[in-house]
Amino acid sequence: MKHRVLTTQVSAHAGQRVRLAGWVHNLRRLGGVDFLILRDGWGTVQAVTENDADLAPLLAAGLGPETVILLEGEVVSEAQAPGGYELHNIRVEVISPVAEELPAPINKRTIKAALPTLLDHAVTANRHPARRAIFRLAAGAMAGFRTTLSLRGFTEVQTPKIVASATESGANVFKLDYFGRPAFLAQSPQFYKQIMVGVFERVYEVGPVFRAEPHDTTRHINEYVSLDVEFGFIENHFTVMAMARNVIAGILETLRTDYAAELALLEANLPAVPATIPHIHFADAQQLIFDRHGVDVRGEPDLSPQDERWLGAWAQETTGSDFLFVTGYPMVKRPFYTHPDPERPAFSNSFDLLFRGTELITGGQRLHRYDDYLAALARAGYPAEPFSTYLEAFRYGMPPHGGFAIGLERLLMQLLGMPNVRLVTLFPRDQVRTTP
Amino acid sequence: MKHRVLTTQVSAHAGQRVRLAGWVHNLRRLGGVDFLILRDGWGTVQAVTENDADLAPLLAAGLGPETVILLEGEVVSEAQAPGGYELHNIRVEVISPVAEELPAPINKRTIKAALPTLLDHAVTANRHPARRAIFRLAAGAMAGFRTTLSLRGFTEVQTPKIVASATESGANVFKLDYFGRPAFLAQSPQFYKQIMVGVFERVYEVGPVFRAEPHDTTRHINEYVSLDVEFGFIENHFTVMAMARNVIAGILETLRTDYAAELALLEANLPAVPATIPHIHFADAQQLIFDRHGVDVRGEPDLSPQDERWLGAWAQETTGSDFLFVTGYPMVKRPFYTHPDPERPAFSNSFDLLFRGTELITGGQRLHRYDDYLAALARAGYPAEPFSTYLEAFRYGMPPHGGFAIGLERLLMQLLGMPNVRLVTLFPRDQVRTTP
Repeated sequence: MKHRVLTTQVSAHAGQRVRLAGWVHNLRRLGGVDFLILRDGWGTVQAVTENDADLAPLLAAGLGPETVILLEGEVVSEAQAPGGYELHNIRVEVISPVAEELPAPINKRTIKAALPTLLDHAVTANRHPARRAIFRLAAGAMAGFRTTLSLRGFTEVQTPKIVASATESGANVFKLDYFGRPAFLAQSPQFYKQIMVGVFERVYEVGPVFRAEPHDTTRHINEYVSLDVEFGFIENHFTVMAMARNVIAGILETLRTDYAAELALLEANLPAVPATIPHIHFADAQQLIFDRHGVDVRGEPDLSPQDERWLGAWAQETTGSDFLFVTGYPMVKRPFYTHPDPERPAFSNSFDLLFRGTELITGGQRLHRYDDYLAALARAGYPAEPFSTYLEAFRYGMPPHGGFAIGLERLLMQLLGMPNVRLVTLFPRDQVRTTP
Repeated sequence: MKHRVLTTQVSAHAGQRVRLAGWVHNLRRLGGVDFLILRDGWGTVQAVTENDADLAPLLAAGLGPETVILLEGEVVSEAQAPGGYELHNIRVEVISPVAEELPAPINKRTIKAALPTLLDHAVTANRHPARRAIFRLAAGAMAGFRTTLSLRGFTEVQTPKIVASATESGANVFKLDYFGRPAFLAQSPQFYKQIMVGVFERVYEVGPVFRAEPHDTTRHINEYVSLDVEFGFIENHFTVMAMARNVIAGILETLRTDYAAELALLEANLPAVPATIPHIHFADAQQLIFDRHGVDVRGEPDLSPQDERWLGAWAQETTGSDFLFVTGYPMVKRPFYTHPDPERPAFSNSFDLLFRGTELITGGQRLHRYDDYLAALARAGYPAEPFSTYLEAFRYGMPPHGGFAIGLERLLMQLLGMPNVRLVTLFPRDQVRTTP
């Protein structure tokens, strides 16, 4: 659209007549004065008139919020106006008329709709400035992820989502009719990102993963965006943890630098990432819980959510860090490709990164020798044949390597303190929801 | 790995003793001299010794190509060596032993294997430097795509791949068992990217799309990476074409600037993109074919591959451009959401971008008014109900908008002049292939 000025550019045109375009965000009449708020893809601007005739194209047809219009006016400095400027002497032209009320109105500070209504009408509800800010941050998180890794020599890959067999177990995968044969949706790019370490050494992927888990919780959805990292020639899982720290720090730095307006709108306070995130071994963590809380979880194969919260609180109190690595989870609870701790083989060279007491990232060192894979598959009771192309990577030389994955939506949920992962997902997929 | 030097950094360490790590790319004995080529994630370096004892860890165990090693040596300037430097006084330490021959050896200039062998063993074949260069260019194309659009105010989105109904037609979609109900894999993010114009105005997506078409050609695969663009407040399809031109130019500029080594290795000559790409209307193109070649395709609803080649040759001869826009394809051959030409409603405001006579990009202006969608669906014989959440966007105000999509693998195939799209796909999915 020629000579169009964006809402974010209005302040640079004080005293001039400008042409904007966007949606009628709000239209209010107060004491004989009409206030029209125009929203475009980036922000809003207020237009003011005391002459109803200026709004005739809208008023005559009973057009309301979300009508798409052209708006011309003179930019006037006005301390009372949001953003410090408003439009006077306006002219309105309707591009796409809307006469119906939105199912979930989006021109209040928050959307007053129950979660199901909001999700059913995400198509329009996501136009709300606060919801839009969330998804702008999602884009920022992806950008920060990629930038951090590109600077460290990582190459982006896109690996197949249709796979011949399940990654880690036969359960919880979506089954597909692939030209009359069964196939599956990838639960994670785990096998492919490891394979690609043999090609590029350092790889990352941003893409969808699919989990057929019949969960109905505030933390689970059945399709999400996974930020995956894998790299070679590591010493052990501590090399991976150092990279995970840098990636989280890089994402937060990108958001702080390039998405300040969105963070302000959402009143979000991003955490500081220590230069070195504190860490504690799984066994020591269980002992600590016993010592501090008198609850004996020593010998349990995993940490409970309560255990994680206690550990998060301990890290916060003793080091001031919102982040804590728990290392060395028992091998029995980790997937077959996990590298054991050479000193204590019942424990693994793996880690979880807790953020304020909740798991944010899982990662670790993987096995890298062919014979170790054959033994691990046998131990897990898996036949080797379905894994034969995966195993080809190890048969023909792989270095010590490891990696981690971050769920984009969970990252946003935790950073923004949102109560449900569906609220930070554009169009969530859960057991009952495949639309919109 | 501490104090590790990459193959690409060796020249900066002349005269020093350095430590590298990587794969044994090749090991040859010529006239009593051993030449060991080490490959890491970025390049190769040659190590030379006349003393077999230096290679004892390899030779004793019969270890061959792809063995993962540590390699220490002194960096010596040597005009004969690839890259101008080589390692002397070497010490080798084996990290991961490989005694077997690769199924498709990768240490010759090209892989001497039939296509099925190469695809079956893509896990290791993709380690070949020439194949690796292709996939590095794929990463570069994605980076160039994103950079070009970010600079123009576009926001990245990730939309769901599991959908309740097929995008454009019931045929040719993969069907899924979604908790006992049917669902489908998205053929394209078309509906979602249009919906997101209502949120951000300008969006792009890089992600997998799934086509269940039972094609067996050199140009079709059943899962590919789609680079999708959609934006609002356009005049018509010419606004979209101008953006498509900028995106292609941005991708090529990124490849030229940041991927010169890969282009050189592949002996690729990237085309120049004219400031304005020439364009011709569909009807005029058919007339031109009749006038120049005596073949009467006037009135046909689409162009044949031969037609496209003739048009590409014409553009090349008359304007010197490798690129040509064909505009105004008949509405009957375009999807229901296509915007008609207001002056000639049997033709559409859509386009194809031909590159050297083959379609590279398809795009156009979409309908944006709710009533137009209801009429278009009725005309196409589709019930409106399955489209209700898509239609919600138009019911509540959408601006004139349009967009386009680029298939990443086809783009690479055409830019590199490769004979089969499978050759530029990391792990292709076709009718017979779901592994590796």
